[in-house]
Amino acid sequence: MDTSRIFAQRRTVEQVEEGHELAPKFDAQGLITAVTTDVSSGELLMVGYMNAEVLALTIKTGEAHYFSRSRQALWHKGATSGLVQKVRELLIDDDQDCVWLRVELSGGASCHVGYRSCFYRQVPFGAEAHAAPGPLPLRYTETEKVFDPEIVYRGQPNPTKL
Amino acid sequence: MDTSRIFAQRRTVEQVEEGHELAPKFDAQGLITAVTTDVSSGELLMVGYMNAEVLALTIKTGEAHYFSRSRQALWHKGATSGLVQKVRELLIDDDQDCVWLRVELSGGASCHVGYRSCFYRQVPFGAEAHAAPGPLPLRYTETEKVFDPEIVYRGQPNPTKL
Repeated sequence: MDTSRIFAQRRTVEQVEEGHELAPKFDAQGLITAVTTDVSSGELLMVGYMNAEVLALTIKTGEAHYFSRSRQALWHKGATSGLVQKVRELLIDDDQDCVWLRVELSGGASCHVGYRSCFYRQVPFGAEAHAAPGPLPLRYTETEKVFDPEIVYRGQPNPTKL
Repeated sequence: MDTSRIFAQRRTVEQVEEGHELAPKFDAQGLITAVTTDVSSGELLMVGYMNAEVLALTIKTGEAHYFSRSRQALWHKGATSGLVQKVRELLIDDDQDCVWLRVELSGGASCHVGYRSCFYRQVPFGAEAHAAPGPLPLRYTETEKVFDPEIVYRGQPNPTKL
């Protein structure tokens, strides 16, 4: 799918915010932020990045593709793990520098650590945070992993960087 | 709130992914991505950025603060518009470079254009995208603005950049 055909040039703020054509803004690294939620539960599953090629692939195929910043490579979500994300709705924000994917998960999980969502830990705030003596303690919202990443991603490098 | 107290040092991948302490990763610009959803509807309202100071302020006050990249300034959401976001749950992702705020909206809207959510337009994909002759057409999911930005943000510069 030809990105010069499907993406419009960004000409004016009004066109971008109140217009009717897709005119995404890619940052200095050529990336746009992609937020992915579960279409059934509304849960935030992950936040990833897309370049123009990968956004076009997602639009073309209806399956989520991302650009891995740690591997600097195109990434068809689920190609290794089988945990494919079928796009059910795709939306773009006011200034068109962020897309929202509402997806159906196959395999029941999205996170490379093995949890359903990447957001499996709560951060305290307000009075609870004031009372903490040192670094803020995280509370797990998921206690059981959906899959064992040692098996699913055997031999693959961990994408998390310090 | 002292960021050197509430944030732990990032020592190992295991500590970051499977540990119990908050150890956020700020990027080369000192920012972490913040995804904000409506705690009642689950709708994605906006995606913003936070630096260490602003994340600590959000944790301390229980109200969403962001860092405006276009204005390079701290931004207490709702200070101008009255559309404050009360944090009801705060979560962090596996590699701790993204936070998820589940908020209660005052004023019924979040987007500076006047809509409830910043994500008020759908992008076609699959067969519908293949059939489009030129730039992909966007379809509005919200048809009525909640407020008039010309009144609420009178005299303020528009944050959208081309």
